[in-house]
Amino acid sequence: MSTTEKDIHCKYPVLAEIDSPADLRRLPVSKLPEVCAELREFLIAALAENPGHFASSMGAVEITVALHYVMNTPYDRIVWDVGHQAYSHKVLTGRRDKFKTNRRFNGLSGFPNPEESEYDSFIAGHASNSISAGLGMSIASRINHDAARRNVIAVIGDASIGGGLAFEGLNNASISKNNLLIILNDNDMAIDQSVGALGDYMAHINTSASYNRIRYKLYKFLKKLHLIDEKHKDIILRFNNSLKSLITNQQNIFEGLNIRYFGPFDGHDVERIVRVLNDIKDMEGPRILHLRTRKGKGFEPAEKNPAVWHAPGKFDPETGERKTGCNAVQPLKYQDVFGNTLAELAEKNSKIVGVTAAMPSGTSMSIMQEQFPERTFDVGIAEGHAVTFSAGMAKDGLRPFCAIYSTFLQRAYDAIINDVAILNLPVTFCIDRAGLVGEDGVTHQGAFDLAYMRCIPNMTVAAPMNEHCLRNLMYTAQLQNCGPFSIRYPRGNGVLTDWQNEMCPVEIGKGRKLSDGNDVAILSLGHIGNNISRLTTELRAEGVNVAHYDMIFLKPMDECILQEVAEKYKWVITVEDGTVTGGFGTAVNDWFNEHDCNVKVRKIGIPDAFIPHGTIPELYKFCKMDNDSIKQLVLSLIKAD
Amino acid sequence: MSTTEKDIHCKYPVLAEIDSPADLRRLPVSKLPEVCAELREFLIAALAENPGHFASSMGAVEITVALHYVMNTPYDRIVWDVGHQAYSHKVLTGRRDKFKTNRRFNGLSGFPNPEESEYDSFIAGHASNSISAGLGMSIASRINHDAARRNVIAVIGDASIGGGLAFEGLNNASISKNNLLIILNDNDMAIDQSVGALGDYMAHINTSASYNRIRYKLYKFLKKLHLIDEKHKDIILRFNNSLKSLITNQQNIFEGLNIRYFGPFDGHDVERIVRVLNDIKDMEGPRILHLRTRKGKGFEPAEKNPAVWHAPGKFDPETGERKTGCNAVQPLKYQDVFGNTLAELAEKNSKIVGVTAAMPSGTSMSIMQEQFPERTFDVGIAEGHAVTFSAGMAKDGLRPFCAIYSTFLQRAYDAIINDVAILNLPVTFCIDRAGLVGEDGVTHQGAFDLAYMRCIPNMTVAAPMNEHCLRNLMYTAQLQNCGPFSIRYPRGNGVLTDWQNEMCPVEIGKGRKLSDGNDVAILSLGHIGNNISRLTTELRAEGVNVAHYDMIFLKPMDECILQEVAEKYKWVITVEDGTVTGGFGTAVNDWFNEHDCNVKVRKIGIPDAFIPHGTIPELYKFCKMDNDSIKQLVLSLIKAD
Repeated sequence: MSTTEKDIHCKYPVLAEIDSPADLRRLPVSKLPEVCAELREFLIAALAENPGHFASSMGAVEITVALHYVMNTPYDRIVWDVGHQAYSHKVLTGRRDKFKTNRRFNGLSGFPNPEESEYDSFIAGHASNSISAGLGMSIASRINHDAARRNVIAVIGDASIGGGLAFEGLNNASISKNNLLIILNDNDMAIDQSVGALGDYMAHINTSASYNRIRYKLYKFLKKLHLIDEKHKDIILRFNNSLKSLITNQQNIFEGLNIRYFGPFDGHDVERIVRVLNDIKDMEGPRILHLRTRKGKGFEPAEKNPAVWHAPGKFDPETGERKTGCNAVQPLKYQDVFGNTLAELAEKNSKIVGVTAAMPSGTSMSIMQEQFPERTFDVGIAEGHAVTFSAGMAKDGLRPFCAIYSTFLQRAYDAIINDVAILNLPVTFCIDRAGLVGEDGVTHQGAFDLAYMRCIPNMTVAAPMNEHCLRNLMYTAQLQNCGPFSIRYPRGNGVLTDWQNEMCPVEIGKGRKLSDGNDVAILSLGHIGNNISRLTTELRAEGVNVAHYDMIFLKPMDECILQEVAEKYKWVITVEDGTVTGGFGTAVNDWFNEHDCNVKVRKIGIPDAFIPHGTIPELYKFCKMDNDSIKQLVLSLIKAD
Repeated sequence: MSTTEKDIHCKYPVLAEIDSPADLRRLPVSKLPEVCAELREFLIAALAENPGHFASSMGAVEITVALHYVMNTPYDRIVWDVGHQAYSHKVLTGRRDKFKTNRRFNGLSGFPNPEESEYDSFIAGHASNSISAGLGMSIASRINHDAARRNVIAVIGDASIGGGLAFEGLNNASISKNNLLIILNDNDMAIDQSVGALGDYMAHINTSASYNRIRYKLYKFLKKLHLIDEKHKDIILRFNNSLKSLITNQQNIFEGLNIRYFGPFDGHDVERIVRVLNDIKDMEGPRILHLRTRKGKGFEPAEKNPAVWHAPGKFDPETGERKTGCNAVQPLKYQDVFGNTLAELAEKNSKIVGVTAAMPSGTSMSIMQEQFPERTFDVGIAEGHAVTFSAGMAKDGLRPFCAIYSTFLQRAYDAIINDVAILNLPVTFCIDRAGLVGEDGVTHQGAFDLAYMRCIPNMTVAAPMNEHCLRNLMYTAQLQNCGPFSIRYPRGNGVLTDWQNEMCPVEIGKGRKLSDGNDVAILSLGHIGNNISRLTTELRAEGVNVAHYDMIFLKPMDECILQEVAEKYKWVITVEDGTVTGGFGTAVNDWFNEHDCNVKVRKIGIPDAFIPHGTIPELYKFCKMDNDSIKQLVLSLIKAD
């Protein structure tokens, strides 16, 4: 036994014996609270050292333990919705000792992924997909004629269930022949506060807890006496509904959709959850079990401020003090520059409104929200609605700034085309987390926005290389006569300490030359251009002069620069933090071909593959987007001449 | 007065005097049934001659008349959801005499479009967007400090309201400060039968009609006596809800979402609708008015078979006999070849399942549905769910074929990337109506799928040139070891009369040479290749030999062909029925550049613009994709040498 193993056995005696859910199932139910307590201690210790999503997973400890205890995983499928609640699931399913590699390059993914474990039934990075995917699995089990009944359990949060996809799943689940069990993990939070009527609704439903308890007991009692059976459940359901409405003055949306509803129960009473799951697991038809939980449960600082503790970074496991790293003055995050600038613009232009889809703090839309609450809209996890709603406002004279992460904006693709671009409406898309995002990995990389935006008519596509440019682009986008305008910027810090320039309009489709050179020109788009600036300086010191242009716009492109480059250089290297398949390099190449230029293009960017998690430098290297790789390429091109 | 005008005055004496809603508003309410009757006659006569969407507009006549009568349009905004219910709206808003140009090139659009009339508040071609867009307008009115209250009315069908976007809109409407009025035009049909729990739910809600009538009368009575006011509406609402649930054994989903609900009322009693609208139009807060209508109302054949009469083509206005055109043996539609082939494959492969999003007849998924009802899923207007649900089934061993129109598949973009492609799941996307679709126009053109699919890792992207190829691609896609596979084909007829070949697997990424030539090679993708075959034959007769390759695959591409072409030809013309910005031509060009080929590429395809409605030949000409334009290009290239 190694020191680490000894250490684990000493600190977590019960957990140390659980190498798979089968081990868990051998324990008496009375032992489960201990398992939960140890899991929490384990997660706190692990995440204090190796940062990750904290509060969600702390809230889902009992749900996870109870599910693996009652269900026959992996034969039974647990489909996690937004996987950052699934850390205890990872620990219980053979990944306890690897958990220290969580979110690290070549280590465990921070989200469930079937490629990592057979216990991970489905991919879980984008909210609201679990009901649809789980319904597919439940129906597959029927069509496959599985000998034994296979339980499929979708575990979805109260914010995720407000997404359109989840509603489509619910709506469809209720009319199909299936045994899907939906567990609503209701902590009354998305990452920030959850919003929408459904959120209000669930806050209210709590008031009916006593009624539900009575009903649940009655149900069990009648079943024991064989006074009710599955055949008559519709009548019972209906009777229940009206009884309940009368007592609680409350409608039940789920039962309106003909899905049997149980709850709410305390989501931190693991023995209780086990009993309820045992009671309802063999029932036929779709069911919802509503569990009330607390984000950050078991760690006081996180319970008090769950939004901050969503992903707190390193912290002291004893005091809860967060370690913010070195105190050197760093440039602001692009997010904060966006947030401050939007508020600044909104101050002057009363037509500006801000729209975010459940990410006020992630996008820093919160800054405008605080100053202009009446003009800032957090619509919840509802990216399609965020965009179409913005389109409606733009149609009637407002100037919406809609800030959504690149990977989540994929959900609004049709809304962008159909509701914004066709009418050429002045909606500004502030595409956050564009490009590689690092530790969040495959489901969160912002790889595709340049490619999927480029083909949309009327769309301006821009990417600033620094904070001043970001501010000027935002300033320009809110002026008259701008149609749809997209501005992408990456996760993390900018490059300037004096970010707050006097804003001025930029000419749309105009880039800038940063340096001249011989033979090779590098055209970069966006923040990654800062790496290229460093590289050209380095190369110049070595006697190699490479030209560098910061294009700023993918659409329309600066044709003067393209013409100049085609005339002066043999080789053009395009550099972008996005897929090379259909993005910026492709557009440059298309232009050279259309204009019969003989210059050759080499494209640097995200390859045609899904990129895993790791630090940004690791991923840049992995994608050959790092300066070493680009330097090699430059030197090889010069040598080839 | 011209003969046509005289004719109109004679046949439609009331309607002929209505040049705008202001004229309508001058009539006494008792005259409105006459307006409706004349509108119906007018629509029947017009659509018998110049085909369009029939049944939906016939069902919405009274709603339209009542809305324009009560509301102050265009200051008040009517937002139509799926605009093919809006023909009477067009007739009443100054477009009566132009209506004969409906859906024709340079004529009226078949859908509302703000570029056509100020009465068309928003674009309406894709279902479920009206609540979000209308909410945006209602909120814009508040932020704009409009002097007079502006009513915004979203008119949405019972099928559209089941879409995720509509739910996101409802969910958000209920918590924002707004006066949105949602009119639920409930005809219990999408284009086919509407599906999902919400559909069932609305069928049931009818049973509570008597209760609602009582409640509505009570409300008016109490208001008259000033016994209730807006301040106390929450309490009243809650009391109403429990009372109603008790009486009707029914939950009201909308009131569960805190949106005031009125109805259901008869959607064909125009005077009644006027009274109700007058009663509720000045209320504060979001409201739903539920009207029951009949698709095809007032024309017996359409009432009996509304799915067929959704868009019936030309017909005899007296007898209702549909004119099917010439009886010469024509090739089957691609849709029918798809439908028959899927059923044929499903017969042999028990793992195949079919998924459609509210288009069983449009996609001909109905053929499989009839033979294998248990393995065919119509999920309603819910494209995102259709794809994620397919992914869930694929994950557990099934082989889903998911048939969705190109333009609607945009709604499932994130599901394709996140739920299918990352896990490399074997979901086959049968992308129907790919390329220009003709008369349905700007919102329905299938212009973007090649571009938006190309950038997705793991995705195979194919387009057959004929029915045999379509069948072979489908056959190949259901074999082992295929990941995500997309097959696109256009609206309309194929080219073979003997479509039913013995299916065989095709090599993925393998195209074929159709003819050799000098100097110029044309590479085509998909059905449009048939035009090129005709063109090369024609050119050969004129002594010009042009090579022609049918590439079949956009991704992966046939590199042997590309190598051969680069070596043998100076010019390559790429031809595709999709956007040239990021599609097939772009991919060919990218490949030539990456492999240092000096061949020049000229791209034929849909330009970077939104394309209006017209016949396919008109639109091909408009886009310079017609054979004349391509011939000119070929000749100019040869001459330039």
